[in-house]
Amino acid sequence: MYKLLKSSNKSKSRLGTLKTAHGTIDTPFFMPIATKGAVKNLTTKEVGDLGAQIILSNTYHLYLQPGLEILKKQGGLHKMMGWDGPILTDSGGFQVFSLSKIRKIMEHGCEFQSHIDGSKHTLTPKKVLEIQKIIGSDIAMILDVCPGSRESKKKVLEAVERTTAWAKDAKKYKKVLSSKQKMFGIVQGGLYKDLRLKSLKELVDLKFDGYAIGGLAVGETAKEMYGVLDYLVDEMPSDKPRYLMGVGTPENIVEAVKRGVDMFDCVIPTREARHGRLYIRKKKGLEKGFYETINISNAKFKNDTKPVNNTNLKQYTRGYLHHLFKTKESLGLRLATLNNLNFYLTMMSDIRSEINKGKL
Amino acid sequence: MYKLLKSSNKSKSRLGTLKTAHGTIDTPFFMPIATKGAVKNLTTKEVGDLGAQIILSNTYHLYLQPGLEILKKQGGLHKMMGWDGPILTDSGGFQVFSLSKIRKIMEHGCEFQSHIDGSKHTLTPKKVLEIQKIIGSDIAMILDVCPGSRESKKKVLEAVERTTAWAKDAKKYKKVLSSKQKMFGIVQGGLYKDLRLKSLKELVDLKFDGYAIGGLAVGETAKEMYGVLDYLVDEMPSDKPRYLMGVGTPENIVEAVKRGVDMFDCVIPTREARHGRLYIRKKKGLEKGFYETINISNAKFKNDTKPVNNTNLKQYTRGYLHHLFKTKESLGLRLATLNNLNFYLTMMSDIRSEINKGKL
Repeated sequence: MYKLLKSSNKSKSRLGTLKTAHGTIDTPFFMPIATKGAVKNLTTKEVGDLGAQIILSNTYHLYLQPGLEILKKQGGLHKMMGWDGPILTDSGGFQVFSLSKIRKIMEHGCEFQSHIDGSKHTLTPKKVLEIQKIIGSDIAMILDVCPGSRESKKKVLEAVERTTAWAKDAKKYKKVLSSKQKMFGIVQGGLYKDLRLKSLKELVDLKFDGYAIGGLAVGETAKEMYGVLDYLVDEMPSDKPRYLMGVGTPENIVEAVKRGVDMFDCVIPTREARHGRLYIRKKKGLEKGFYETINISNAKFKNDTKPVNNTNLKQYTRGYLHHLFKTKESLGLRLATLNNLNFYLTMMSDIRSEINKGKL
Repeated sequence: MYKLLKSSNKSKSRLGTLKTAHGTIDTPFFMPIATKGAVKNLTTKEVGDLGAQIILSNTYHLYLQPGLEILKKQGGLHKMMGWDGPILTDSGGFQVFSLSKIRKIMEHGCEFQSHIDGSKHTLTPKKVLEIQKIIGSDIAMILDVCPGSRESKKKVLEAVERTTAWAKDAKKYKKVLSSKQKMFGIVQGGLYKDLRLKSLKELVDLKFDGYAIGGLAVGETAKEMYGVLDYLVDEMPSDKPRYLMGVGTPENIVEAVKRGVDMFDCVIPTREARHGRLYIRKKKGLEKGFYETINISNAKFKNDTKPVNNTNLKQYTRGYLHHLFKTKESLGLRLATLNNLNFYLTMMSDIRSEINKGKL
C-alpha cells in the first residue's frame, strides 16, 4: 500500500506513494477537510483542480447528518458528494472529545450527546467500522480515546489502554470493512514518552495499514509536539504511512515532514479563510519567512490593487476581496478558501519537490 | 446600437442584437444581478459559463460600498470584479424607493438615508451619471422617481413629471458619460395608461439609447402588468431596446417577450436559490407547465437520488443538496444558484430559438 520512493539525507523526510481504492497519492500530502461531505464553499471539481489528492470527512458528523440510511441510499459518500478520489474518515473519537458536552468512555465504546439535537448515541470500535463501510472510506480510522494534552499521566494511561483494547476490537471486526478499505490505528499517549511508545508498540503488534498520531495539536506547544515526533516517528514502521492528525500551521507541517510524517489534515486553511485570514506565499522555498498571513478585512486593503495572489486568484484584487468581506458577499469566503487551500496544496507539492531534489 | 433581426408573426416578440462597449448581446436577454459587484455565490467565470451575456449592478449600492474613491482606484467595476462582458447599472431611483427609510424628492434630486449606516446622501440626475462613469457601466440608467403601484394618480403624475424633468437634466449632462456608454430612460406612470403614454412620449422626445419600463413588479398583479405592456410597448420606438425592469417569474418573462420586451433583470433566481427554492425544467418548449419549483429543504428529498437537474448539476443528487441545506453548508447556496441561473439563462436561449423558428 505504501511505497517509499526516497529518503532525505538532510532530515527524516521521505517521498512515497500511498495506494488506495480510489487512486494512488503522492506523499507527503495534505487533506482538505470536508467534515459534513463538502469542503466548505467549494465544489469537488475545484478541490481537485487545486491539487487535492484526497479529502477528509468525519464519521461522527456524517453519522448524525445525513445519517446511515441516506448515506446508504445515496450509494456512499463518493457518489453522494461527487468526488471520485480517495477519502479518509476520522473515526469520531476526536469529535466526541471536542464537540460533545457529555461523553462517557465505557469498556465497549463511548457514549456521547449529539451537538445538534442533544440525542444520545454510542460509538463502538465495530460501529465506527460499520459506519465507515457505508461511507465507503478509502482509509478508515479506528475508534480511539483522545485525552487533552494537559491530562494527568493516569488519565492518559487509561486512554492508551482503552485505545489499545478498542484497536483489538477493530482488528477483530476488520471484516466489517471491504477488503479494499484500509484501516489505520491511532497512537495516543499525550506528552508522555513511555505512554506514546507503549501505545505505538501495542498498535504495531496488531498490524494496521498505517499509523496515525492522535492527541496532538490539542493545546500543547509546537516545541512539545516536535518533541513527541522526534522520538515517536523513529519507532513507527517505515513501510507504513504516518499520519499526524489535525496538524497544522505551515511551519508545523514542514517541521513534521522533516521528522518523517507523510500525511496531514487541518481546518486551518478553510476555517481561517472564513475569517478573512489569507496565507500568502512570500518567496520560493520553505525557509522561515516563506509566507505571511494577511487579514483581508483590514482597512488598509480597501484601495489595494494588487492581486490576491499570483497564482489561482490573480484576476481578483485585494481591494475587491476586502469589499466582498465588508459587504458580506459569500463569494469572498469562497475566494479566500481557494487562496488558502491553493497555498497549502502548493506548499505540499513544493515539499515533495524539495525532498526529491534532496533539499529538505 | 440595437439591431432588429426578426419579428415574430405569432406575437410581438422579436429577435435582435444590442451592441455595447464590452460586446454584442443577443436579445431578448436576462441579466443576473450583481448588486454589490458580485453575483451571489458565483465567480464571474461561472456566470459567463452559464451563458450570461450581461450582468446588472447597482449604482446605489456601489456608491455606498465600496464608494467612489475605491471604484476609481480599482479602475472601474469591470476590472474590480473581473468581468469583461457588458454591465448595466440601475440608477438608484428604485433602491431609494425600496431601501431607504427616508426619502425626500426635491427638484434637483432625491435625498436618502443609507440603509447601512443611516448617513444622508443626495442623488441627482448628474450625480448618478458621474457615479456610473466611474463604475464604467456599458448601459447607464437615468435617475427616476419610482412610485408604488397603488399610489394615487396625483402622486404618480408627480413622479412622471419629476422623472421627465430629471431625464432632461440627464440629457443635459450626457457628456459626463463617455461616448461609449449608453444611456436609457425609464418610463413611469404606474397603472395609469395616460400617464404611462405621457411619460414614454416625453422620454422618446429626448432620444435615449433605450427605454426601460420602471415601476412594475412592485405589487400589482401579473394581469395588470401585462395590461400595461399591451398598450405601452406598441408605442416604444422599434429601433431601440425595451427593458422591463425587475421582472420576473419565468411566465412573466415569456409573456413580456410576447409583448415585445427585449431585456430583463430579476433577483428571483439568485434570491430563491438562497431559500432552497429550485426552478426545474419539466419539458421542452415554453408552454404552460414547462417548469416546476421544488423546495429542496423539504424532507421528501432526503433520500432522493435523482440529479438536481439534467444539465449543469447532473453530478449532484437532490438528496445531497438537501443535506447541504440541512447542514447549512454554503456550497448548497452555490449549487442552488447555479441551478436557477442555468434555468433562467437556458430559458432565454430557448426563447430566442423559438422566436427564430417562428414558434413564439
